[in-house]
Amino acid sequence: MMLDIDLQSETPIYTQLVNGIIEGIARGELQPSEALPSVRSLAADLGINLHTVNKAYHLLKQDGYVQINRKQGVVIEPDAFPPADAAFKERLAKQLRPLLADAICRGMSKAELEAACAAVFDELRPNEQGGG
Amino acid sequence: MMLDIDLQSETPIYTQLVNGIIEGIARGELQPSEALPSVRSLAADLGINLHTVNKAYHLLKQDGYVQINRKQGVVIEPDAFPPADAAFKERLAKQLRPLLADAICRGMSKAELEAACAAVFDELRPNEQGGG
Repeated sequence: MMLDIDLQSETPIYTQLVNGIIEGIARGELQPSEALPSVRSLAADLGINLHTVNKAYHLLKQDGYVQINRKQGVVIEPDAFPPADAAFKERLAKQLRPLLADAICRGMSKAELEAACAAVFDELRPNEQGGG
Repeated sequence: MMLDIDLQSETPIYTQLVNGIIEGIARGELQPSEALPSVRSLAADLGINLHTVNKAYHLLKQDGYVQINRKQGVVIEPDAFPPADAAFKERLAKQLRPLLADAICRGMSKAELEAACAAVFDELRPNEQGGG
């Protein structure tokens, strides 16, 4: 797994870690039951604080993306990922709103925004080009 | 203009202000050349710090959404909003990626994501339902 951490970004490092791991799952690079690096080794690899990695892993656990076991360490949730339930869809709309508002002010049309969304989907899931 | 500030949110208040104003422009509730409340009065209305409002206004200026004049105060950019140039589209894709990755892990299809995007567009621009 490639985790790209930008220390200059305004996005907190723990958020970048959470996003990077969820993106790895979406891309299929991280599989259910797969073990993630220990807190200590990931922190050392990335040159970041232990607490930052710990916070990211606990947020992923809270969201239902990983399990934290005493023996196996941190593993990608083996059974089922969290659902796209009404609460998630509401949160998604809320997070999309400022991005799309900015794009609308800049003159992007609905079709252009759907295409931007589709392009990101295709980048994450290149083998589902026809998927509906 | 209705600015909905959530003091409990993880999103910084200045970001909420920036987003709220850009959303107001996207919705057509804020028009070019329209004056925004003074820093002092907006801070008092919302019960937040002067510096928070100041930071939001300066970010909006930096992005090309407002002008800050000594006489007129803060006004919505009268001429042209910033363009949807390549740099913006790259930033948009980067910001969409973690949202869509999360949705993909939760089993949402490309069509569902395009529909979610379209629904937010329609909510912001209800009179452009057919727009393409």
